Amino acid sequence: MTAPDFLLRPVGVVRSDLRDRELAPMQGDEGAPDVWIELRPEAVRAAASLAPGDELLVLTWFHQADRSVLEVHPRSDPSRPLTGVFSTRSPDRPNPIGLHRVTVTHIASPTSLQVDALEAIDGTPILDLKVAMKEAPDA
Amino acid sequence: MTAPDFLLRPVGVVRSDLRDRELAPMQGDEGAPDVWIELRPEAVRAAASLAPGDELLVLTWFHQADRSVLEVHPRSDPSRPLTGVFSTRSPDRPNPIGLHRVTVTHIASPTSLQVDALEAIDGTPILDLKVAMKEAPDA
Repeated sequence: MTAPDFLLRPVGVVRSDLRDRELAPMQGDEGAPDVWIELRPEAVRAAASLAPGDELLVLTWFHQADRSVLEVHPRSDPSRPLTGVFSTRSPDRPNPIGLHRVTVTHIASPTSLQVDALEAIDGTPILDLKVAMKEAPDA
Repeated sequence: MTAPDFLLRPVGVVRSDLRDRELAPMQGDEGAPDVWIELRPEAVRAAASLAPGDELLVLTWFHQADRSVLEVHPRSDPSRPLTGVFSTRSPDRPNPIGLHRVTVTHIASPTSLQVDALEAIDGTPILDLKVAMKEAPDA
């Protein structure tokens, strides 16, 4: 067992035409573009079994988030009452981990795969990829 | 915007009768017990809008994971071929973030809420809670 810590080590990065958080859709099914996942060389073996058509959960680190935010107006709509961030999907939260369900569309090289509809902006660090569970969706 | 970093700050901890990783079920729907989520005081406002019946995603940090593992035999079955961890739900992976879909069953105090069927062992740090999206399951 390796000594665990609380330091994240990104396994890759999002490459996207989306460059501005203000212009990004709030969810992947709201007009998000296909993006490339650029993996770090040290993560290649972890990705070696992926194939086009696989449904994945992509965990990202919202690097532009405000980690001090505990309450928000949902969907940035000031007419909606202030709501604790654990009841929302706001990127602003104490640990700004993004969760995106995607399908692998293309694998260009061991370090480069394309997925559909991911709303994170270019340069967003990727923390993890996990196979999505179809029978019992766990998000 | 606060300066982001890659350091996780747990917002709480799992309190469970499950104490040994070897005895824990592999998924929440495979006999996992109800558990208590003990929140840190500084996270209370983020949880203030939660109510019994809410469906949540709980993100945990598998503190006993081996972060050096890149390939596993799925479900610890040696007859299954070695598979890159991004194609599995193995807790052993570079960033051992657990993802659990649960329902809030009871709120005992602002820092203490009970959820059903979570397979993480006692003492597992909690990184985030997010409302689950029913219409478009994103995990």
